[in-house]
Amino acid sequence: MEHNIHKHISGNFNQELENVRNHVLSMGGLVEQQLNSALDAVLNNDADLARKVQEGDFKVNAMEVSIDEECTRIIAKRQPAASDLRLVVAIAKTIADLERIGDEARRIAKVALDSFNNEQQDLLVNIDNMGRQVSKMLHDVLDAFARMDVNAAFAVHKEDAKVDREYEALTRQIMTYMMEDPRSIPKVMNLVWSVRSLERIGDRCQNIAEYVIYFVKGKDIRHVSQDDIERDLMS
Amino acid sequence: MEHNIHKHISGNFNQELENVRNHVLSMGGLVEQQLNSALDAVLNNDADLARKVQEGDFKVNAMEVSIDEECTRIIAKRQPAASDLRLVVAIAKTIADLERIGDEARRIAKVALDSFNNEQQDLLVNIDNMGRQVSKMLHDVLDAFARMDVNAAFAVHKEDAKVDREYEALTRQIMTYMMEDPRSIPKVMNLVWSVRSLERIGDRCQNIAEYVIYFVKGKDIRHVSQDDIERDLMS
Repeated sequence: MEHNIHKHISGNFNQELENVRNHVLSMGGLVEQQLNSALDAVLNNDADLARKVQEGDFKVNAMEVSIDEECTRIIAKRQPAASDLRLVVAIAKTIADLERIGDEARRIAKVALDSFNNEQQDLLVNIDNMGRQVSKMLHDVLDAFARMDVNAAFAVHKEDAKVDREYEALTRQIMTYMMEDPRSIPKVMNLVWSVRSLERIGDRCQNIAEYVIYFVKGKDIRHVSQDDIERDLMS
Repeated sequence: MEHNIHKHISGNFNQELENVRNHVLSMGGLVEQQLNSALDAVLNNDADLARKVQEGDFKVNAMEVSIDEECTRIIAKRQPAASDLRLVVAIAKTIADLERIGDEARRIAKVALDSFNNEQQDLLVNIDNMGRQVSKMLHDVLDAFARMDVNAAFAVHKEDAKVDREYEALTRQIMTYMMEDPRSIPKVMNLVWSVRSLERIGDRCQNIAEYVIYFVKGKDIRHVSQDDIERDLMS
């Protein structure tokens, strides 16, 4: 059920739309890299890498503003209709979520500026596992966006439930640790925030999956149950 | 420096744009009410009211989807340019933030389902104070949106720094409490989440303020320092 976007582009779509789509993919690649670097920095307690992530966030912000302007220009100049307009709307929403994922990566990187004892390191390893899962979700949803593949998008959409369960389990584990070592609370609270950031990144990947489905199927599936979406994709 | 939107509407703007603007204000009013009810529910430990807030969130979601469709329809049918297009873009972004504020209100309401001892009640009172401050910010930014008043919008934009300081102070206070009574951690952690939710609502009000400024001034001021914005508003 992969949407044949290339045929579409070479037909009615103009070069401007192809360009803006490529810019979204570059922005997505940068955000993915920011997230992976943030996770590496935390796992290896690498303060230099963490600062690089924090400093790199401005590039993500600048890309969002510039792509947003591109979208507005295209709407004003080309007055797109039907699926062309849906693509521009999907792009405008996608970059807003990507920018927020960049913000979360910056927040996660901050944890690398602390140092942790051995027991706390165990928590870090678990957070890293959850982080890699979320990073894969981001990778997969960008891939679904690149190919405008609804089935791949729906697979990411369902993946978020797993991330939510992981989030619950990890938060409980960190709270247990806090109860056993209350003096560690101010430091360990930063781990709680990272886990929350990862959970939010999962939500945002789910949003992007919804925009892909909206573009291809022409239907807004936000706030619709997954069973209903599945039935609709089958039909 | 109040933007004369009414003149604009009676001139070039069509009835559809006036309608969609009114729908945003209704949605804003509902979200404000959801937030205030959530705060009332928490302060008075009122589980019934909390459930009402949780059940009421679907209305906020439905309004977002419907206004979003209205915006896409207007772009496709009317092919707005310049400030008309900026208004539609500002509206589409505003309702996305309002929807997320609704989600945060729903999360805050959950706290009312727990019961708290006297010491914890003191924390609740402080959270309520921060909540009322944030609720006023939401009220003020909706007011700035209704009048498309850049100065009022900029005042809200600056207000967010106070909310951030309040957030830092309250989080520290709650962590201190956790350290003194570690067994309370799982319950008190829900208070940490509410304070975080309030901080995020402040951020979203700041976003909406930026859309108002974007509409009136035609400039995207996201990721621009407040000093630079101020210089620009003066000029």
